Amino acid sequence: MIFIDELKTQLGQDKVSQSESELYRHSKDESFHKPVEPDIVCFPESTEDVVTIMKIADQFNVSVTAHGAGSGLEGQAIPVNKGISINFDRMNRVLDFSPEDLTITVQPGITRVGVNQVTNRQGLSFPIDPGADASIGGMIATNASGTTAVRYGSMRDQVLDLEVVLANGKVIRTGSRAKKSSSGLHLTGLFTGSEGTLGIITEITLKLHGIPAQIIAARCTFDTLANCAEAAQMILLSGIQVMRMELVDKQSIAEHNKHGDYKIPEEHSLFFEFAGTKSGVEEEVATAKELMEELGCSNWIAANNSKERAQLWQARHEMSYAYKHENGIELAGADVCVPISKLPELVEYARQIIEESGLKGGILGHVGDGNFHTLVPFNPSIPGEQEKAEYTNEALAVRAIELGGTCTGEHGVGLGKRKFQQAEHGDALEVMRDMKQLLDPKNILNPGKIFLESIS
Amino acid sequence: MIFIDELKTQLGQDKVSQSESELYRHSKDESFHKPVEPDIVCFPESTEDVVTIMKIADQFNVSVTAHGAGSGLEGQAIPVNKGISINFDRMNRVLDFSPEDLTITVQPGITRVGVNQVTNRQGLSFPIDPGADASIGGMIATNASGTTAVRYGSMRDQVLDLEVVLANGKVIRTGSRAKKSSSGLHLTGLFTGSEGTLGIITEITLKLHGIPAQIIAARCTFDTLANCAEAAQMILLSGIQVMRMELVDKQSIAEHNKHGDYKIPEEHSLFFEFAGTKSGVEEEVATAKELMEELGCSNWIAANNSKERAQLWQARHEMSYAYKHENGIELAGADVCVPISKLPELVEYARQIIEESGLKGGILGHVGDGNFHTLVPFNPSIPGEQEKAEYTNEALAVRAIELGGTCTGEHGVGLGKRKFQQAEHGDALEVMRDMKQLLDPKNILNPGKIFLESIS
Repeated sequence: MIFIDELKTQLGQDKVSQSESELYRHSKDESFHKPVEPDIVCFPESTEDVVTIMKIADQFNVSVTAHGAGSGLEGQAIPVNKGISINFDRMNRVLDFSPEDLTITVQPGITRVGVNQVTNRQGLSFPIDPGADASIGGMIATNASGTTAVRYGSMRDQVLDLEVVLANGKVIRTGSRAKKSSSGLHLTGLFTGSEGTLGIITEITLKLHGIPAQIIAARCTFDTLANCAEAAQMILLSGIQVMRMELVDKQSIAEHNKHGDYKIPEEHSLFFEFAGTKSGVEEEVATAKELMEELGCSNWIAANNSKERAQLWQARHEMSYAYKHENGIELAGADVCVPISKLPELVEYARQIIEESGLKGGILGHVGDGNFHTLVPFNPSIPGEQEKAEYTNEALAVRAIELGGTCTGEHGVGLGKRKFQQAEHGDALEVMRDMKQLLDPKNILNPGKIFLESIS
Repeated sequence: MIFIDELKTQLGQDKVSQSESELYRHSKDESFHKPVEPDIVCFPESTEDVVTIMKIADQFNVSVTAHGAGSGLEGQAIPVNKGISINFDRMNRVLDFSPEDLTITVQPGITRVGVNQVTNRQGLSFPIDPGADASIGGMIATNASGTTAVRYGSMRDQVLDLEVVLANGKVIRTGSRAKKSSSGLHLTGLFTGSEGTLGIITEITLKLHGIPAQIIAARCTFDTLANCAEAAQMILLSGIQVMRMELVDKQSIAEHNKHGDYKIPEEHSLFFEFAGTKSGVEEEVATAKELMEELGCSNWIAANNSKERAQLWQARHEMSYAYKHENGIELAGADVCVPISKLPELVEYARQIIEESGLKGGILGHVGDGNFHTLVPFNPSIPGEQEKAEYTNEALAVRAIELGGTCTGEHGVGLGKRKFQQAEHGDALEVMRDMKQLLDPKNILNPGKIFLESIS
């Protein structure tokens, strides 16, 4: 293939690889979606290298798929049309850190832990926390969020500026370093969450936040899932600005206890984190405790030192490992997000369809923003199990859309949520397709993602 | 003109007007940009009416300009290519208010005070406050913000879903009722701030927020503008989540004293508002006072009841009236926004260029997010004054862009900031133009705005 020779010549041999191990590593992410190997993996070291890659891809009509930390959950990094995978391991530098502006500019390959290692020294943090140590580029591409979204929103809320290499190799900047702007059309928000289908992101300027002086974690339990969801809603309405507020159902707590020999009360549980000034946080915790007890909670427990906080939250943090600890077991997981008032109904429905599937499985999620996940383990070698697991996922996505919500709160569309795009977006999907066509007329940017029909 | 007969027939006589007074009212906004009258004003009462208007406009190739409360500051509502002005006075209803979801869905004609009249009863507020009682549609169109942006961001951060009538009359929804989503491409952010150039917004779903239990206002003064800006920066770095933090220079305080016979210390001043739980706010105020005194402030004063708070902030709220109280006087005003670290430099520069212009004029703004305005009054009947006033505006915009900022933090591009789009956006402007062309191939949607060359 000529494009491979061109890449080797123009980029240099040390920036490309066709080794078995690299092709394999770039064939998959953490999802159960079917692996596909690229023809070649490139390791650019600069924006100019990415421009070189895109110009060759454009010239020879070759698909290009960006690959961050490989922690995606919907197959976004799988090069389903083969071609070039761009690995960002060598583009992982901090380009500018301005503590006085509460901003940092990074290359896409740095991970969120890597960013925090730099910023924490100055008392600042980048708070978006999807669990995995994802790359910032990948988090921008999927508009990731996680446990702190109830307070800080998603990646889109935390990005000020992007440098993007377009399909034709042109380089643009979408924003500025200013905290806000009403200038031009808002391309930053459009490229964020576009999953590499509109351009390749090569620089990111993020907002930073002060590390709160005081953090207190807490946990309590309720008799029903609906009660948990209602309690979460009451916390939000009370005006308490929780840092994190998570739901874990009793089935998952039991799984966690079994997995790690723990002895947490096996009830539907809410996990909280409160953060701010010392007396502000103490007031919030007292108010929250009172509110939860009025609503009939049990087992309230709070902790303010970091070791006890970690123990208290362990059941939440380790949950996917608890389900996946057996060899060969895969996980199907929904990622629905609905208006808070619909949450009690949807979590009860989720429990019901998991029961009906005959598989074990749990519910956990970021109930502070209406987003939750199911974790349904299945054995791919047992016929029918994957289909049953996937069905739970689909039924939930359909119901979430009917309830005015979305099929994906934070994982992105990738391969798995394409089939719900028409139902969720209606005629707006046509506008999205037109934008894809405008920015990527040859369909070489991550084809097969977001749009069902986009594999050439 | 046939399109006028079509509008009268298809919409009905009672939904159109060609009266002198209506044509005049729709020829202008609150800026000094030259008025242009539309050919006809339409008063739709539903999305269907807007579809009817757009289909006629599309068929007869007529320009369409949306008109909200008329409080814009960059001429966005001026129908520079004549044609149809759409007035949203009759589309001002609340379509859905969900206190339990902290959301409200409204038509574009309702104003922000109108929204708060509905939500305040339930202890909720829509906090974006640009000063004027702007329409929500206009605020979305310009991505407005104001004094609370330091805490709540801009309109784009507060919108979940839009219904938009496209140039061809198709109706789309851009988001959902869920608090967050990673589904599809982010059209909500693209239409927000697009100033009616990509589509006509007919429904808006906004986030709401709890009204804080405790609010305390405060004010203090510093010797130099740079000291004020640095003090604001220190507040942000301290992690105090101010609700508002505003700068008013001593020239403007003097103008205010003269205008209203007040006796506020005529020094460069910072105005604060702290809001949250009772003890949290008290702690923040104590910390802020200590910090400001360490930095050498004078005249610290705080107030916690609503009457005293209003008095304390009066000098900030009435500022543009103070400058505009003489008949026939117009105001030119910059709207720059830069990274916080560049603020001391830029406010000093602003003072300098106002002095050089020979005009009086003041500086005030939302220093918490790096955005500030100049208010430079000029008499249009004195030759040369307008040019001098406009020059201060231009010099500031150019410098702000050089400093990594934006020519408009919250007023939008409209007519006045078009000339800076190339400098600010570079090659990205080409992508923006392509999107405009994609969504409005006949250039009938608010032609002449954002893009310099877009009048047909």
